[in-house]
Amino acid sequence: MKNQIKREQKQRVWFRILFQWHGSVLPSILPKVLLCGAFSIIIALLETGGLNLSLPLESGIVPSIVLGLLLVFRTNTAYDKFWEGRKAWGTLINTVRNLARSIWVSIEEREPEDRTEKIVTLRLLVAFAIATKLHLRGEPVNSELAPFMSPLRYEKLKIMNNPPIEVAFWIGDYLQRQFDRGYVNAYQLTAMFKLVDQLVDVLGICERILKTPIPLAYNIHLKQLILLYCFTLPFQLIAQFEWLTPLIVALISFTVFGIEEIGIEIENPFGKDPNDLPLEQICETMTRNIEDLITLAPCVRRWQDTP
Amino acid sequence: MKNQIKREQKQRVWFRILFQWHGSVLPSILPKVLLCGAFSIIIALLETGGLNLSLPLESGIVPSIVLGLLLVFRTNTAYDKFWEGRKAWGTLINTVRNLARSIWVSIEEREPEDRTEKIVTLRLLVAFAIATKLHLRGEPVNSELAPFMSPLRYEKLKIMNNPPIEVAFWIGDYLQRQFDRGYVNAYQLTAMFKLVDQLVDVLGICERILKTPIPLAYNIHLKQLILLYCFTLPFQLIAQFEWLTPLIVALISFTVFGIEEIGIEIENPFGKDPNDLPLEQICETMTRNIEDLITLAPCVRRWQDTP
Amino acid sequence: MKNQIKREQKQRVWFRILFQWHGSVLPSILPKVLLCGAFSIIIALLETGGLNLSLPLESGIVPSIVLGLLLVFRTNTAYDKFWEGRKAWGTLINTVRNLARSIWVSIEEREPEDRTEKIVTLRLLVAFAIATKLHLRGEPVNSELAPFMSPLRYEKLKIMNNPPIEVAFWIGDYLQRQFDRGYVNAYQLTAMFKLVDQLVDVLGICERILKTPIPLAYNIHLKQLILLYCFTLPFQLIAQFEWLTPLIVALISFTVFGIEEIGIEIENPFGKDPNDLPLEQICETMTRNIEDLITLAPCVRRWQDTP
Amino acid sequence: MKNQIKREQKQRVWFRILFQWHGSVLPSILPKVLLCGAFSIIIALLETGGLNLSLPLESGIVPSIVLGLLLVFRTNTAYDKFWEGRKAWGTLINTVRNLARSIWVSIEEREPEDRTEKIVTLRLLVAFAIATKLHLRGEPVNSELAPFMSPLRYEKLKIMNNPPIEVAFWIGDYLQRQFDRGYVNAYQLTAMFKLVDQLVDVLGICERILKTPIPLAYNIHLKQLILLYCFTLPFQLIAQFEWLTPLIVALISFTVFGIEEIGIEIENPFGKDPNDLPLEQICETMTRNIEDLITLAPCVRRWQDTP
Amino acid sequence: MKNQIKREQKQRVWFRILFQWHGSVLPSILPKVLLCGAFSIIIALLETGGLNLSLPLESGIVPSIVLGLLLVFRTNTAYDKFWEGRKAWGTLINTVRNLARSIWVSIEEREPEDRTEKIVTLRLLVAFAIATKLHLRGEPVNSELAPFMSPLRYEKLKIMNNPPIEVAFWIGDYLQRQFDRGYVNAYQLTAMFKLVDQLVDVLGICERILKTPIPLAYNIHLKQLILLYCFTLPFQLIAQFEWLTPLIVALISFTVFGIEEIGIEIENPFGKDPNDLPLEQICETMTRNIEDLITLAPCVRRWQDTP
Repeated sequence: MKNQIKREQKQRVWFRILFQWHGSVLPSILPKVLLCGAFSIIIALLETGGLNLSLPLESGIVPSIVLGLLLVFRTNTAYDKFWEGRKAWGTLINTVRNLARSIWVSIEEREPEDRTEKIVTLRLLVAFAIATKLHLRGEPVNSELAPFMSPLRYEKLKIMNNPPIEVAFWIGDYLQRQFDRGYVNAYQLTAMFKLVDQLVDVLGICERILKTPIPLAYNIHLKQLILLYCFTLPFQLIAQFEWLTPLIVALISFTVFGIEEIGIEIENPFGKDPNDLPLEQICETMTRNIEDLITLAPCVRRWQDTP
Repeated sequence: MKNQIKREQKQRVWFRILFQWHGSVLPSILPKVLLCGAFSIIIALLETGGLNLSLPLESGIVPSIVLGLLLVFRTNTAYDKFWEGRKAWGTLINTVRNLARSIWVSIEEREPEDRTEKIVTLRLLVAFAIATKLHLRGEPVNSELAPFMSPLRYEKLKIMNNPPIEVAFWIGDYLQRQFDRGYVNAYQLTAMFKLVDQLVDVLGICERILKTPIPLAYNIHLKQLILLYCFTLPFQLIAQFEWLTPLIVALISFTVFGIEEIGIEIENPFGKDPNDLPLEQICETMTRNIEDLITLAPCVRRWQDTP
Repeated sequence: MKNQIKREQKQRVWFRILFQWHGSVLPSILPKVLLCGAFSIIIALLETGGLNLSLPLESGIVPSIVLGLLLVFRTNTAYDKFWEGRKAWGTLINTVRNLARSIWVSIEEREPEDRTEKIVTLRLLVAFAIATKLHLRGEPVNSELAPFMSPLRYEKLKIMNNPPIEVAFWIGDYLQRQFDRGYVNAYQLTAMFKLVDQLVDVLGICERILKTPIPLAYNIHLKQLILLYCFTLPFQLIAQFEWLTPLIVALISFTVFGIEEIGIEIENPFGKDPNDLPLEQICETMTRNIEDLITLAPCVRRWQDTP
Repeated sequence: MKNQIKREQKQRVWFRILFQWHGSVLPSILPKVLLCGAFSIIIALLETGGLNLSLPLESGIVPSIVLGLLLVFRTNTAYDKFWEGRKAWGTLINTVRNLARSIWVSIEEREPEDRTEKIVTLRLLVAFAIATKLHLRGEPVNSELAPFMSPLRYEKLKIMNNPPIEVAFWIGDYLQRQFDRGYVNAYQLTAMFKLVDQLVDVLGICERILKTPIPLAYNIHLKQLILLYCFTLPFQLIAQFEWLTPLIVALISFTVFGIEEIGIEIENPFGKDPNDLPLEQICETMTRNIEDLITLAPCVRRWQDTP
Repeated sequence: MKNQIKREQKQRVWFRILFQWHGSVLPSILPKVLLCGAFSIIIALLETGGLNLSLPLESGIVPSIVLGLLLVFRTNTAYDKFWEGRKAWGTLINTVRNLARSIWVSIEEREPEDRTEKIVTLRLLVAFAIATKLHLRGEPVNSELAPFMSPLRYEKLKIMNNPPIEVAFWIGDYLQRQFDRGYVNAYQLTAMFKLVDQLVDVLGICERILKTPIPLAYNIHLKQLILLYCFTLPFQLIAQFEWLTPLIVALISFTVFGIEEIGIEIENPFGKDPNDLPLEQICETMTRNIEDLITLAPCVRRWQDTP
C-alpha cells in the first residue's frame, strides 16, 4: 500500500518534470526552432507552387554519425566540466571541514584569546569559500563576506585582484605564527599547510573550468553542421510529409538544438541559473558545520571555561 | 561432468534473473508503458474508423542518435554515481581498517585503562560508518549507534546537525590527547590525522553524490524526447502492423522507459532498495574486522594481561 | 625474410585463436543459441504450414540502440572491473617490492638474529598476497601458505575471519617493535606504515570488485531485452530467408549471447578460469623477487657475514 | 525584460560563431573538399557521357561504423591531450601559487636582504612557467625571460638544453640553502621540495603530450578510410542526385575532413593558434598573483619595515 | 603568404602519411584481405555458374552494432594500454629528474669523493631506465648498460632475474648510507625513498601492461565475428554488385581487419616497431638531462672546486 502511494508520487514527479519550463532549454532554443520551421514553410510553399525541391531521403550514414559524434562530444565535455566543478566544490567542503577540525583539535589554547583567534581563522575558511564563489561569478567583494572577517581585512580584500588567494595567505600566516609561538608542532603545521594548498588548488581548478571553453574549432564546426542538417532536412522530407514537414522539422530541430543548448548551459556551472551548482547552499552548509564545531571543547584547551 | 553441472546451474540462474520481479524496473514503468499502449489502441481505432493517420516509417537517423545518446548519457552518469558511491564506501572500509590497525599497533598502553580507551575509539570508527549511513539516508541518530559509544556521547550526537563530523572530532581529539601524553609520536599522529581526514572526505563524497542529481535541463529534455518518441511511434507503425501496433509500441516503450528508470533508481545508491548498495552488510563486515583486531595483543602493550 | 616468417607466424596465431574452444564462451552460450534456433524451426514449420507469421523487418532504430547500449554498458563495466582488479594486483606487487626493499635497506641489523627476523617479515609480505588470493577465491587458509610463516602463526591464521588483515597486523607490529628498539627512525616507520596501508587498500579494492555485481535492474532489463530480441527475430526474417531462418537466428543470437556471456565471465576476475587473472603467476613472481632481494647485503648490516 | 535582452545577445553570439572564419578549420580543409568536389564533377561528366558508373547506395553498415569509430577515436584522443595540457598548466598555476605562499609565509627574514632574495625566488617561479612555455614552443630563451632573473643567470640559461630544469635547480638550491642557514625547518623544506617536484612533473607531462602523436598506424588507416569513403561517395550518389552530386559530396567531405582536421589542430595545444591554450594569459595571471603577494607582510619578518 | 606556404606543407604531409607503407598495418592484413577477396571470387563464379547464392542485404542492425562495439572496445583498450605505457615512461622521466635534482641539491659533499659517488648514483638512475627498457623487451643485460655502472655491478646485474629492482636496491642503499653518515636528514631521505618507490611502481605498471593482454574470450569472440562478417558479406553483395563483389569485399575487409590489427600492434607498446614508444629517445633525453645537471654546482658543496 505504502509502495503503491510512493510509486504514484514518482509518476507525478515524472510528469511534472516533463512539462517544467523553468530550467528547461526551451526559452533559449525557441527562436532557432521557429526559424527552421519557418524555412520549412517556405520550402513547402515553393513545392506546392510547382517547384520540385525534393531530395532523396538517405544521404549517407557517415555525416549523421559525425554530427551525432560531435553532439555527444559537446555534451560529454560540458558535463565533465559541470561534474569536475562539483567535485572541486566537494573537495572544498571536505578540506574546510578537515582543516577546521585540525586547527580546533591541534592548536593549543593557553589563554581565552587563543580561542578567539582560532574562531577568527575558522571563519576565514568560510570566507575563502565565499570569496571563491564571488570571484568565479566575476562579482566584487561584497557585504556577504563582511561577517567573516575584521573590517580592516574586509577593506583590504576589496582592493585585491584575487581575493581568495589573499584569504589563503592570512590562514597560512596564522598557522605559521602558531608554529613560531610553539602552539603547534612542525609536522602538524606541514599537514595543515597541505590542506591550505588544497584550498588554493580548488580555486585554480574552478578558474580553469571557467576560462577554458570547448576549443573554438569544435564549436564552429558543430554549429555549421547543425545548421546544415536542419536546413537540408525540409528538402529530404517534403516529398513524403508535404504540409506536415514544418512540424516535423521543428520537432527534429528542437531535439538537436536542445542538446547543443544544454552543453552551453552547463559548461560554466558557477552561475546562478537553475542548471548551475547550488553554491549558496554549499556555503551555508559550510558555515553551519563550522559553527557546530565551535560549540565543542577540544582537549588542547589549557584554560577553564566558565559557563 | 562437474563442469556440466556447473554450466546447467548457470543456465538456471540466467533464466531465474530473467523473470525476477523484485528489483526489476517493471513495477515503476508499467503505468507509462500501459499509457503508450492505450494511446496506440486509440490510434488503431481511429485508423480502422477510416482516418488515415499513418506517417512514413523513416523520420531521420539523427533524432534517434540524439535520443540514444541522451539515454546512454543518463545511464552512464547514474552508474558513475553508483560506482563512485561504492568506491567511497570501499575507501571507508579500508580507512577504518588502517586507522584501527595503526591505533592498535602504535599507541602505547601503559595501563589497562589505555587499552579500554583504545577499544572505545576503535568502536567509534564503526560508529562513524553507521552515522554516515544514517545521515545519507536522512534518518535520525537511532539505537543502532548506541552500542558503539557511551550514553553521554549518544545523547550529544542526537542534537548535532551532522553526526559523523562530530564522531570524527572525537576520534581526532582522542589522538591529539595521546600525543600530548607522549603515547604516540608526532609523525604517526600526523599520519593518523590524515586517515581521519580521509573518513571525512568519504562523507563529503557521499553527500555530493546524494545532493547532485543530473542537471535539470538534461532531465527535462530527455523526458520530452522519450515521450515524443513513444507518442509518434504508433503513427509510424500503424500502416504496417495494424492491430499489432499497441503490442509493439508497448514493447518498445518498455525498452526505453526501462533504461530511463534504471538511471533514476541507481542514481542515489544509499537507500534500501534491492538496487542500492548493501550498506548494512558493509557496516557489519567492519564491526567484525574491528572485533577480530581487538583479540590480538600488540607489542606496544607495556602491562601484563592475566587471562 | 625474417619479417616474412614473423608475419606468417602471426597469421597462424590469428587463426589458432579463432578456433580455440578452451576459454571461449561457446560452451556456456550453446544451450541458449540452440534454443533460439529451435524456436525458429518451429516458426518456420508453422509458416510452411500456412500460417502467416511474418512481420516487417524494420521495427525502429531506437530499441536496437538501447539494446546495443546495454550490451556496451555490460561489457565496459565488466572489463573495468577486470582491469581494476588487475591494477590492484599490480599495486600489490609494487607495494610488496617497495616495502621489502625499505625493510631490507633501512632497518638496522645489529645481530644476525635481526636479519633472520627481517627475512621472516619479508616472507610475510608474500603470505599477505597469497592469503588475499585465497580469501578472494573463498578458499580456506591452506598448505600453500605454510612455508611463509611459523607453524604457530599458521594455526592462528586458520581461525581468523579475514586472514590477510591478520598478516598486515603482524607486519605492522614488527615495524612498530623495530621503532621501539630504535632500529628505524619515526619518518621511515611512517612511510613503511603507509605501504602497509596500501596493502590493505588493495585487499579492500579486490573485495569491492568481488562483492559488487552490476546493479540487478540492469541485469534483468538486459536479459529481458536480449530474449525479446532473439524471439522476435524469426518473425522478422521468416518471409525473406524461409528455411535459412534458423541458421541465421542462431548466428545472430550467438553474437549477442556471446557478448553478454563475456561480461559475466570477466566480471569476477579472481577465479581460476582461463579468462581470469593469473594470480598464481603473480604470487610466484613476488616470491622470486623477494628471494632475490634476500641475497643482497645492505649497508645497514652492522655484523660480519662469514660465508 | 533583462532576460529577454540576454537571450537575444546569446542568439547573436550563436550566429557570430557560426560564420567565424578565424579559428575555424575551413582554410585547412578547403583544398581537400574542393578535390573531392572536382572528382565528383568528373564522375558526373562521365555519367552524362553515357558511362554507367552508379553503384547501389547501401554498402554495409559496418565500414561506416568503423570510419565513425576512428573519427570518434581521433577526436577524443586529441581532445584528451588538449585537456590534459590545460590541466597541467592549471596545476602549474596552483603549484606556483602554493610554493610562492609557502616561501613568503614560512621562510624567515632576519634582514632586508632575506626579503630581497625571497622576491628573486618568487620571480624565478614565474620564470619557470615562461621557460616551460618557450621550451614547449621550441623557441630559444628570449628577452621575455630577462626581467625575471639576474643577467648572469639569463646568460647561463641561454646555453642549457632544457632551461626549465635549470630554473627548478636554482629554486631547489635556494630552498636547501635556507634550510642550511636554519631559516626553515626540515619538514617545511620537504613539503616545498615536493612542490618543486610538481613543477618538474608538469614540464614532463607537457613534453609527453607534445612528443606523442597518435600512433602512426591509426593515422594512416584513418586517412585511407576517409579518402576511400570520399572517393566512393560519388559512385553511390550519382544515380540519385545527378548534377547535385558534386555539391553533396563537397558538403559531406567537408563534414568528415573537418572533424579530422580539428583533431590535428588541437592535438598539440601549446602553439599560438586561436585553438591553442592561452599560455600568454596564464603567464600574465601568474605574474600578477606573485606581485600581489609581494605587497603583503608575513609574520616571519623579524626586521622593521620603514615605508 | 607565410600561412599559405605552411598550409601547403600541411597538405603535402597529409598525403605523404596517406600512402606510407612503413608503420601501416597493410603488410600484416594483406593475406587475410586477399583470402576474403578470393572467397568472393569463388562465390561470384558459382553465382555465374547458375547457383543462386544471394541473400537479402539487410540482416539486422544489432549484430552490426555488436561487431562495431567489439572493434571499438578492442581499439580503446589497446590504446589505453599504449597511453598508460607512455604515461608510465613520462613518470619515469619526471621521477628521475626530481630524484637527481634532490640528490644533487640536498646531499652534502664534504669531500670531492662524495661528489664522485653522487655522480655514480645519478648515472644509476639512467641505468634503471635502460634496464627497465631491456627487461620489458625481454632482452638480457647488455653493453648499453655498461657505461652507467662499475664493471663489478654490471657483472652482478647480468645474473639477476629482474635487473631494474637490483638497481633500485643500490640507489636505496646509497641513500640510506648517506643518512647513516649524517649527510642528509631523515625527512629528505624519506622523500627520496618515495621517489625510488615511484621508479619501481613504473616498472610494475609496465610489466602489468606487458603481461595482461585483452581477455581471451573477447579475442576469440571478436575474431569469430569478424570472419563471420567477412564471409557472409559476398552472399549479401553478389546480387547487386556481381563481378565487383570481390573488390568491394576486399575493401570492406581491409577496413575491418585494419582496425583489429592496429589493436594488436599497439597493445604492447614497448617493442621496436614504428608504432611503439620511442624508448631509445626517452633514455637519451634522460642521459642528457642528468649530464646537464652534473655541470652545476649546488650550495651543499663544502669543498673548493679547482677547475
